[in-house]
Amino acid sequence: MSAFIEPIGRLINQLTKLPGVGAKTAQRYAYRIINMTEDEAKEFAESIVKAKSEVHYCSVCGNYTDKEVCNICETRDNSVICVVKEPKDVLAMEKAHEFKGVYHVLHGVISPMEGITPNDIKIKELLGRIAEGGVNEIIMATNPDVEGEATAMYISSLVKPLGIKVTRLAHGIPIGSEIEYADEITISRAILDRKEL
Amino acid sequence: MSAFIEPIGRLINQLTKLPGVGAKTAQRYAYRIINMTEDEAKEFAESIVKAKSEVHYCSVCGNYTDKEVCNICETRDNSVICVVKEPKDVLAMEKAHEFKGVYHVLHGVISPMEGITPNDIKIKELLGRIAEGGVNEIIMATNPDVEGEATAMYISSLVKPLGIKVTRLAHGIPIGSEIEYADEITISRAILDRKEL
Repeated sequence: MSAFIEPIGRLINQLTKLPGVGAKTAQRYAYRIINMTEDEAKEFAESIVKAKSEVHYCSVCGNYTDKEVCNICETRDNSVICVVKEPKDVLAMEKAHEFKGVYHVLHGVISPMEGITPNDIKIKELLGRIAEGGVNEIIMATNPDVEGEATAMYISSLVKPLGIKVTRLAHGIPIGSEIEYADEITISRAILDRKEL
Repeated sequence: MSAFIEPIGRLINQLTKLPGVGAKTAQRYAYRIINMTEDEAKEFAESIVKAKSEVHYCSVCGNYTDKEVCNICETRDNSVICVVKEPKDVLAMEKAHEFKGVYHVLHGVISPMEGITPNDIKIKELLGRIAEGGVNEIIMATNPDVEGEATAMYISSLVKPLGIKVTRLAHGIPIGSEIEYADEITISRAILDRKEL
């Protein structure tokens, strides 16, 4: 039997659905919510419902937007497309303020282990955008893991024959970190991809 | 300018109201919420509104309940009252499965620094319960800090003259910890309160 009365137990149960939130943290969150005013709690709850109902995928790039076509697709250089796995990767890229082109969100990566085939992710849509013309370069920004690399290679094999440049984000020692603490694979990669000074 | 579209930005903003949740964590939570189904998000939002609307203070002890009088007050030995600062302290006490009496939640402690006087917390209500008769012991379980100790002393000074036993939770080295890591004040206290074997 739960030590909590039903409405609190139910709230705690819902809060544990958030990533990394266990029973203890959910309990702390629940007590904070119960300490809110009625209006604050309503505003909180509404922000959840509204985010869910107003946010959908951009019809062009697949990133989150509350419009038909997202701001990035509407205003930026669409001759360069950066291909990422998930909407949150767009966010990470944007924080660098380096990339001026547009994105394409695959919504997954190819993973035979999990039964995810090229047809299960937004590769057709990417090829469709390329077919419309005007694209000069595809930058593959999938994660540097087995699935991410395989997906990058697969897309590259489809896009290169169309005469379009395909590049991959550089891998190496992260800026601000110490070589001492870098893992062997990263160091190997940094040696292989070393640049002349 | 926020990197987020408005509905996501608003949700993140609401999520940072949870204790210990900064911008990064709120962002992770928000993306998880947006990935929920519409029904899941609604259920989540409803659990917040319902917890807030259905939960209030027990009219006897001041703990959270969704009834007029809480389960603990209704079913347990009310000759012993354990006095705590906040509803979450009741929860912590209950987890020990040791205490068989009832509680009284002060909803604060006396703190001249923060302008909290005895009138600002539920001391009158405690005296009211005692006046109704049948109370043999008051266990002070306020936190072992300046305000908690001062509040315990103050309440003790009011209750003792009524011929009622007033006790305080024992302080000392926590079970399972190592003496090496205990702070000096805890060790002093453990020495002063040492027990004969």
